[in-house]
Amino acid sequence: MGRDDLLDDAAVIDIPAGDELVVTSDTLNEGVHFLQGERAEHIARKALRTNLSDLAAMGARPHCYQLNIAFPEKPTEKWLTEFSNVLQSENETFGIYCSGGDTTSLKGNHLSISITAMGIVPSGKAIRRGGAQEGDVILVTGSIGDAVLGLKTLQEGGDEAQYLNAVKRYRMPQPRTDMIDTMQKYAHAAADISDGLLADCVHIARASKLTAEINLDQIPLSDEVRRAVDQGMITTEQAIKGGDDYELIIAAAPQNVAQFKNATPIGKFTSGQQLLKVISSDDFDCDTENLGWTHF
Amino acid sequence: MGRDDLLDDAAVIDIPAGDELVVTSDTLNEGVHFLQGERAEHIARKALRTNLSDLAAMGARPHCYQLNIAFPEKPTEKWLTEFSNVLQSENETFGIYCSGGDTTSLKGNHLSISITAMGIVPSGKAIRRGGAQEGDVILVTGSIGDAVLGLKTLQEGGDEAQYLNAVKRYRMPQPRTDMIDTMQKYAHAAADISDGLLADCVHIARASKLTAEINLDQIPLSDEVRRAVDQGMITTEQAIKGGDDYELIIAAAPQNVAQFKNATPIGKFTSGQQLLKVISSDDFDCDTENLGWTHF
Repeated sequence: MGRDDLLDDAAVIDIPAGDELVVTSDTLNEGVHFLQGERAEHIARKALRTNLSDLAAMGARPHCYQLNIAFPEKPTEKWLTEFSNVLQSENETFGIYCSGGDTTSLKGNHLSISITAMGIVPSGKAIRRGGAQEGDVILVTGSIGDAVLGLKTLQEGGDEAQYLNAVKRYRMPQPRTDMIDTMQKYAHAAADISDGLLADCVHIARASKLTAEINLDQIPLSDEVRRAVDQGMITTEQAIKGGDDYELIIAAAPQNVAQFKNATPIGKFTSGQQLLKVISSDDFDCDTENLGWTHF
Repeated sequence: MGRDDLLDDAAVIDIPAGDELVVTSDTLNEGVHFLQGERAEHIARKALRTNLSDLAAMGARPHCYQLNIAFPEKPTEKWLTEFSNVLQSENETFGIYCSGGDTTSLKGNHLSISITAMGIVPSGKAIRRGGAQEGDVILVTGSIGDAVLGLKTLQEGGDEAQYLNAVKRYRMPQPRTDMIDTMQKYAHAAADISDGLLADCVHIARASKLTAEINLDQIPLSDEVRRAVDQGMITTEQAIKGGDDYELIIAAAPQNVAQFKNATPIGKFTSGQQLLKVISSDDFDCDTENLGWTHF
């Protein structure tokens, strides 16, 4: 079922016995969440992958998705072909399918795409932001700051060839579906990095009623980001606050840290509800008052 | 769970044991699906109810929904208060909750709202469009044409006081959640009327590989619609093709027709794949070539 339901008013979704459903939605708007005139390929990938990243943060395996797309004008055949070919390829990559959606016309000049992604997790195993425990190590997967460097490169007409990986990371986030098994076993809490590393650490700290103590010097930066910092293209502060990384912040017991491959310890959760405490070497200047989030 | 998940990257949805999940999405855009500058109240109700209508057509009881809303400019406090108060009231009316979503900014002047509604149905009991059987009676709930009359009244600055019910039906569809129990027991196939009565009958006929034989004279029209036809405000053809009614078309065995309260028999499904055959008295003029749908 599911795949054959597009004839019906709604889709029937199979949830395997013993599993729970996890649902998330992200809207991406042209000129806001992706560049005006961005290619169909990049829109499709980014819209889908930001949602799969949210599922990964919950320890949920991607299952299917609803796709709502509003076009300011009739898309060309070429655009639609590229869009659907990319979705088909993404479906295979992530083992998912499109369960339905809606295609509409929107006045104005800006495309809007909303995806609601559904994932599954063994019952009771979903990872919440509120589960971090005092003494837990804070881990971050991959490297931070590439997406904001990629965006800056595209916006300012920078040398794309010099920041190839960063541009790719901005356009095509890599949801951390590779971490799901380990997360289900060993993560106490997690969040994906969309708002920015520090802001998203604070989200976990607040939900868990703890303080996130972060050592900025330990935050993993890619060679490209280090080079961009050296060249004055971005500051370290922009890199770690930029957001759009779609890596995971994970809280885990110290004895389980080694289970998380491709993840770097950057601090720990301590008692008190100070939410955020930043440690760094003297030459690391970072304003911790303005993290890019406003609701606290 | 569910209600408390808004802190997390995604929501965990409880599906009662023995039930299946049914999912549907509708996007409504300002100036296309609702009038430019429409009130928050009407936008909230219409966006939610069109989705619940799709669930009802599947025989699914509303469970929860994801709400994605893109604003062209920061909404006023007044707007937001009205919007959230109405959703709260709708949640109570339909026994549902908002499980999550996304609020974004959209360039241009037109609001866009996408809802993905989730419903539940006892496993195996979802009603498909493809289940109609030869000899089944075609039933339609409520009355047809009010919504298109309401739209015409609003668009043309008609006498709203004269067509109060029609305007209400256009702005606030009534999803047929009252039919769900009966549907689960006795419906072979169903669809909700969004494209228009004839077009949606054809959807069932095509999925079921049958012919929908409709007697136009039997289509239930409200007193307001009959009056509007008499006054030349709309034609009978516009009334029955107008769409947006969000009533249900149901295929049921002749012996079970009496089980469907508030539903009127308007024809039957016969063999052959002619899709649509229309019968009417001589004075009922209706072009059956142009039903407002294009994909057949």
